[in-house]
Amino acid sequence: MQNSVTIQTIDGIGDIQPGDDLAQILISAMDKTELYIEDGDILVIAQKVVSKAEDRYVALKDIIPSTEALALANKVNKDPRKIEVILAESKGVLRAVIHAGQSEGIVITEHNLGFVCANAAVDESNIDQKDTLLLLPVDPDASARALRDRLEEAYGVRVGVVITDTFGRPWRMGLVNVAIGLAGVPAKVDLAGEKDAFGRPLAVTAPALADELAAASGLLMAKDGKKPALIFKGVNWQSEVSSALDLVRPLKEDLFR
Amino acid sequence: MQNSVTIQTIDGIGDIQPGDDLAQILISAMDKTELYIEDGDILVIAQKVVSKAEDRYVALKDIIPSTEALALANKVNKDPRKIEVILAESKGVLRAVIHAGQSEGIVITEHNLGFVCANAAVDESNIDQKDTLLLLPVDPDASARALRDRLEEAYGVRVGVVITDTFGRPWRMGLVNVAIGLAGVPAKVDLAGEKDAFGRPLAVTAPALADELAAASGLLMAKDGKKPALIFKGVNWQSEVSSALDLVRPLKEDLFR
Repeated sequence: MQNSVTIQTIDGIGDIQPGDDLAQILISAMDKTELYIEDGDILVIAQKVVSKAEDRYVALKDIIPSTEALALANKVNKDPRKIEVILAESKGVLRAVIHAGQSEGIVITEHNLGFVCANAAVDESNIDQKDTLLLLPVDPDASARALRDRLEEAYGVRVGVVITDTFGRPWRMGLVNVAIGLAGVPAKVDLAGEKDAFGRPLAVTAPALADELAAASGLLMAKDGKKPALIFKGVNWQSEVSSALDLVRPLKEDLFR
Repeated sequence: MQNSVTIQTIDGIGDIQPGDDLAQILISAMDKTELYIEDGDILVIAQKVVSKAEDRYVALKDIIPSTEALALANKVNKDPRKIEVILAESKGVLRAVIHAGQSEGIVITEHNLGFVCANAAVDESNIDQKDTLLLLPVDPDASARALRDRLEEAYGVRVGVVITDTFGRPWRMGLVNVAIGLAGVPAKVDLAGEKDAFGRPLAVTAPALADELAAASGLLMAKDGKKPALIFKGVNWQSEVSSALDLVRPLKEDLFR
């Protein structure tokens, strides 16, 4: 068992534009700051820069809200065009409420990819154009794999990639980053069959490794969007074919939808 | 803004017994491995060792289940004495179900402290006595403050303390550690009023710093219970009077109870 982990920001990435070669930008930034990638290092990167590079922008002026969007927008006091985009990104709405004293309500949906989160993870902060929204990557695992392949090619070692977004949580206040796209890094680590310190079988405990990495990234990812990518060194992991969708609890096992 | 964080295990802690001077054990272990505490370092420690030192053991043979416990135990196929302990630790039960094909069901409760979690955080793994349960500390914030005071006295610098437990989550698979006791370290960091990278006000985003630290600790805390304490170096935080209870979402704001 290793005894330390280091998390390092990749500095000097700058604003990402649609069509940018994100992998090359990361590699150049790491070269400039003499950040050396070693075997088993993990890149943890914010969804926002991946979505920007993939041009996942939507202009509000191009959106015509449906009747359903207009009704829901009225209920929660949000821009109907934004609600239209949220609904288009979602399989269904879990909750839509406005609390007394709040100017804008909350819409919790099941994203088309399966993630349950607020506003279908549609983003309107840290975007350089006003009246523009930013959607999740079409296939965040594929985005992660593409970055991983480029990094492994550049450095000749095994690299893992985690793409994160910032979600709220039931029961607990405050936001943490979670994994929405994975390459190589296991979503969770199944410990069933292993023994505890007293030699008794561990109950089914599966640490959500990818979400541990994502949450840890929040310690260094500046919320102003200027530190969107980090390198983790020293994490104990075995490469596997993985998907962040393995972190989505199946509906039939979920007691809180 | 700092650009790296290091997480280091405190090695050689050994099994903790009721009445042990946990702070002294940590200090001695750090001395032996030449782990130097610097200003702003944060101790993240698993609830289990804190509860053991505080003798929060309950022997099942001493428990007489109530009628309510017997009925619930029958519903979810658990030991009625364990259910009795869970109920005594809880303000109320949110869900109690058994899924087809599972030998034992799930009981989600609101712990007397306010945390919503499975089995009132009552623990039966990594305990050296069979037929024994381990409860949360009576007041985890007070436990954290006591450790913090001893560490600050020993090293003469500002130290933060986070006590963690491992909770499951609605919507997402796998387990992550969360903060259940705090000293000095803010539960969350309010960014309202700050600006994003494009100079526009950030929407209300409050990173749950204590839970980011807790989740990150899972990267190094061995699940066999042998690495229950870590030191974080390089985290950007301001000391405040804090409580892990600030991470509990108030019932009236919680859409998923």
